[in-house]
Amino acid sequence: MSSVQDVNPRVRRIRTPVGLQSLAARITEQLSQGGQKPFQKVTDVSSGDPHRAGMPPLSFVRQVLAVCLYPELLGEDSLPLDVRQRAQKLLEACNGGSIGSYSPSSCGIPQIQKSVAEFITRRDAGIPSDPENIVLCSGSQKVLSLVLHLLSRGEGLTQTGVLIPLPCPHTLPMLLDEEGLTPLPYRLLEDQGWALEPDQLHGALRAARGRCEPRAIYISNPGNPTGHVQDRKTIREVIRFASSEGLVLLVEEVFQDSVFGRDKTFLSYKKVLFEMGEPYSDTVELVSLHSISTARMGECGLRGGYMEVVNIDPDVQQALKNMQAPSSPPILPQLALEVMVNPPAPGDPSEKEYTQEILRMDDILAQNARRACEFLNDLPGVSCQPAMAGLFLYPRLNLPAQMLEEAEALGVEADVLFCQRFLEEERVCFGPGCENGHDRNDLHVR
Amino acid sequence: MSSVQDVNPRVRRIRTPVGLQSLAARITEQLSQGGQKPFQKVTDVSSGDPHRAGMPPLSFVRQVLAVCLYPELLGEDSLPLDVRQRAQKLLEACNGGSIGSYSPSSCGIPQIQKSVAEFITRRDAGIPSDPENIVLCSGSQKVLSLVLHLLSRGEGLTQTGVLIPLPCPHTLPMLLDEEGLTPLPYRLLEDQGWALEPDQLHGALRAARGRCEPRAIYISNPGNPTGHVQDRKTIREVIRFASSEGLVLLVEEVFQDSVFGRDKTFLSYKKVLFEMGEPYSDTVELVSLHSISTARMGECGLRGGYMEVVNIDPDVQQALKNMQAPSSPPILPQLALEVMVNPPAPGDPSEKEYTQEILRMDDILAQNARRACEFLNDLPGVSCQPAMAGLFLYPRLNLPAQMLEEAEALGVEADVLFCQRFLEEERVCFGPGCENGHDRNDLHVR
Repeated sequence: MSSVQDVNPRVRRIRTPVGLQSLAARITEQLSQGGQKPFQKVTDVSSGDPHRAGMPPLSFVRQVLAVCLYPELLGEDSLPLDVRQRAQKLLEACNGGSIGSYSPSSCGIPQIQKSVAEFITRRDAGIPSDPENIVLCSGSQKVLSLVLHLLSRGEGLTQTGVLIPLPCPHTLPMLLDEEGLTPLPYRLLEDQGWALEPDQLHGALRAARGRCEPRAIYISNPGNPTGHVQDRKTIREVIRFASSEGLVLLVEEVFQDSVFGRDKTFLSYKKVLFEMGEPYSDTVELVSLHSISTARMGECGLRGGYMEVVNIDPDVQQALKNMQAPSSPPILPQLALEVMVNPPAPGDPSEKEYTQEILRMDDILAQNARRACEFLNDLPGVSCQPAMAGLFLYPRLNLPAQMLEEAEALGVEADVLFCQRFLEEERVCFGPGCENGHDRNDLHVR
Repeated sequence: MSSVQDVNPRVRRIRTPVGLQSLAARITEQLSQGGQKPFQKVTDVSSGDPHRAGMPPLSFVRQVLAVCLYPELLGEDSLPLDVRQRAQKLLEACNGGSIGSYSPSSCGIPQIQKSVAEFITRRDAGIPSDPENIVLCSGSQKVLSLVLHLLSRGEGLTQTGVLIPLPCPHTLPMLLDEEGLTPLPYRLLEDQGWALEPDQLHGALRAARGRCEPRAIYISNPGNPTGHVQDRKTIREVIRFASSEGLVLLVEEVFQDSVFGRDKTFLSYKKVLFEMGEPYSDTVELVSLHSISTARMGECGLRGGYMEVVNIDPDVQQALKNMQAPSSPPILPQLALEVMVNPPAPGDPSEKEYTQEILRMDDILAQNARRACEFLNDLPGVSCQPAMAGLFLYPRLNLPAQMLEEAEALGVEADVLFCQRFLEEERVCFGPGCENGHDRNDLHVR
């Protein structure tokens, strides 16, 4: 590896992040060393990280995990009884009764796979979920990269292509790079609140001809970074499209618990798929992702998530397990996931506080999204669609010609230059829309 | 992915684990449902998992992490002051003061990279370590798979080959499968306590001719599963070999804190490399791995580790960072790592208890290794080299002809059959030596 020419060509293909985080870190460092600066600290809103932004964690979650880590707290009367009972139950599910042991299986702790399956069944009005189809993993990005790795094959014209939304989550292009997959963008309609228009899917597929072999379609619902919530009609059309084109459906549903748009409800792809019945319900290959890094839990630092696989061949599921085998998933995020899918029940000592915390968080989220959107729309050169869910807003920028020319001269994207300036002047770190797939003719920030 | 033929051929190549864990889980399930069984539970010794085996965690580590998770405990007077001070300091290093935020960088929390570099400098008698060369990651297996992925290139004759010890850690073959790397085994000498004999390296390299292009050599020191501790002379010879053949040195040094063999000391490859001076010290590419899943910490369930890279081209390091970028490393294992490299100092309130716990654990480990070895050597058909470090023993089996024939007839490896029978009859789960690279002519278990 004496030079980068000697490393895996796939790794060389991964784009280098634009580096705003390093700039933010440098500015934070300068601020900590004093000096004349208008603001005391940098506010980074680029990554959807609620706790970083000051949202408090859910007490019940943290209490249970603290007891699991330090079981001497099982006898601590100042902690609610249901916290200690839950911790006891979770510890019993761990090998050797300790969170320090390896996960019993490469797909996670069986009792927690079961809890997740029961949660999904409740969520989807009784449509059954099989614990064997639940894979617990260290975060939804990791889950996604496992599935993308599974899908990666072929070279040149036979290489796997994946339909992805434009805009897409900002980490997705790097994951595709890493697996050597060709992104096939389908444009979301900004003036319709970033709705998915099925015609765009057909267009993306046509554009793939002679370039690669499309094998999957990636959906983010509720949308990251758009905040759009898909309706039943759209989901049915996407499923029919995936079915007729033989595409695997990869659905990131991480913001399912944070829908605040009026008259909007989260509908899972799984539920709609089973409502549609045969031949869809027993043929369309669906992978659905969820995570503890959601708006409510916000436990991004723990790295936990799951996928549910539906209509996936048993041998392919075995291959997936084999991929996971050498490195078992971490325990604590699995326990956090269990608490997420099984919050305190009515009558439990922690239920009242838990519900209050959730309601307060939902309120803050909805209010912030509305206020920030109003604020942005009042700025000259900025227009923003209202978000209906999730943690992001994705405003459009109409930058002055002077700034566009300057970016051109500096050889950087105009949205990156805008973000750099905004960070230096206002100490707020946005994410440039080029990371979400938009180009210089279509400038946005998140 | 309608069949396994449709998935990434690299994934298809990953071997399916032999499945003793599933058998162990089934037996555990049966035992929990009652019935006439001679033993109450299954003892699984196949994976080097101290907490599963009943070793207690280090109190200081768990106390600090519990406070970080639930900062209300900062005011809990029953916890030692240094626990709360350490937790406070660690929380300040987290974004937003919360373990729920994403890691500040894809290589980890900068303050913890610095702590690790200082630990390495102390360990290696002042040979400097640069925090920029420390990559924090979710476990040493994950670190290793990152580096193997980086090294993976070429097809057929130009495909990357990696020299690996025989026996090797049982997870290594799966990691090589996944990256499409060709294993080039060099035989460790059992009758010399599993010592590494440099002639074997040359032999492995010769055997690679016409098969692949060797690009790295993997070393496990202290050895997994052998418990062997390399001496300075051997390490120097390996370094000279790597240098003359232009191989990247990948050194897993996870058991560095658990050497109990008389007159044996752990020497890091980094230290010996720098003692040797130029041209070695500024040319040999070295990647050294360490983990919190060691004998003393035993925090296998948290999944934390680091690598230090030495003499690696800056562009290659950037490529490594790009690989990590989409999914930031989890926070809690980083904090556990910080505590591991900075245990309570003399005079701190927790120091006495911490030292007692460590000494007790070291004692148990050394005693168990000695007793188990004596016991094994007293069994008919079993011979075992004494271990000098780590968590494994690796006895040789001389199975009766009848069992060998039965295995042949059943189409399973004889060591797997032995492990199955032992598990069914004695409720103890060994790992078969075929997972460590040995074949039917050389039967072992770990």
